Amino acid sequence: MNPVEASSSGVGTLPQHGRLFVVSGPSGVGKDTVLARLFTRVTGAVRSVSATTRAPRPGEVEGRDYYFVSPAEFEAGIRAGRFLEYARYGEYLYGTPRDRVAEQRERGLDVILKIEVQGALLVKSLVPDAILIFLQPPSLEELERRLRARATDTEARIAERLAIARTELAALFQYDYLVTNDDLETAVETLRAILIAERCRIKHP
Amino acid sequence: MNPVEASSSGVGTLPQHGRLFVVSGPSGVGKDTVLARLFTRVTGAVRSVSATTRAPRPGEVEGRDYYFVSPAEFEAGIRAGRFLEYARYGEYLYGTPRDRVAEQRERGLDVILKIEVQGALLVKSLVPDAILIFLQPPSLEELERRLRARATDTEARIAERLAIARTELAALFQYDYLVTNDDLETAVETLRAILIAERCRIKHP
Repeated sequence: MNPVEASSSGVGTLPQHGRLFVVSGPSGVGKDTVLARLFTRVTGAVRSVSATTRAPRPGEVEGRDYYFVSPAEFEAGIRAGRFLEYARYGEYLYGTPRDRVAEQRERGLDVILKIEVQGALLVKSLVPDAILIFLQPPSLEELERRLRARATDTEARIAERLAIARTELAALFQYDYLVTNDDLETAVETLRAILIAERCRIKHP
Repeated sequence: MNPVEASSSGVGTLPQHGRLFVVSGPSGVGKDTVLARLFTRVTGAVRSVSATTRAPRPGEVEGRDYYFVSPAEFEAGIRAGRFLEYARYGEYLYGTPRDRVAEQRERGLDVILKIEVQGALLVKSLVPDAILIFLQPPSLEELERRLRARATDTEARIAERLAIARTELAALFQYDYLVTNDDLETAVETLRAILIAERCRIKHP
């Protein structure tokens, strides 16, 4: 299908559906902070809501924070191909419901999905027009400093996270954009620019 | 060549050279106004300076407004493949010097080239990583209104320009971005977003 069509006014029109943006980056790079600020500055973009088998925490709202499902439901969803990607963290399962993403895109909303590299590459294989953005620290030394500053991880866990970061960087060439989170404000504005630019991008088959 | 490389700090680095942006759009759409405003808001981007066989007008500066060359020099340049594209307007030749564009890109500057569709497609064939942006009016009716408002063209010339605009729109699918100049401010900010986004884009071979 030709992605640019002529409208009745004689000019070209771009697809009206929303785009799917996948944001990855090593633990500690600042994905949550950057995305939280981004959402205050763009309209027409929503965060993808995951399904999970864990119980709601106080204040968490079904459909806003998560879709809370039973392990049996989740397993059935996996078998039926209802997740774009899923992963187990500790004893719980987390996954991205394929239908919900498609519905929001059909309504013209850009969907932003924050997942790790392996999941991102899986999403790209299932949704070829997904746009993959990698958020990286200015250096691995700086990443190590930020992980220590969070003071939530043991030394062993920090070493593990750094090793994972090195592995993830090897997948970079499969991404569409590389954004360095050196200055928070610059990183947020760069992500915003990517959203705006992609909305007027003509896709080539 | 892999466009993303690992730096000594362990993270990915993007190419340091500048990008080549080609902006086209029908006569009367507002390319000059949009670009003039864009240049006041971005750093690291320069307008490509054309070579021409016409004489300098009062106030025009060699190398800033144009490279002024003799018809013989220009013809020699064509034969030697020294132009990315060239065209004759009236009795004069105008062309984009390939070397100058390459030099500026090597210095890390984004080069912005404003040319019509045929030239843009030629540039794309010679410089495959050129980024093509089409600036369109909200409708052909609005384009006609703007052309009349300029009051510089005869009725026959306006009809001709509208016919050319229709033909050019057919080449849209070969472009990378489609920007509608409905509101000037929005168009300028969208172009700026495209520049910022493309600077962190990972090129896929």
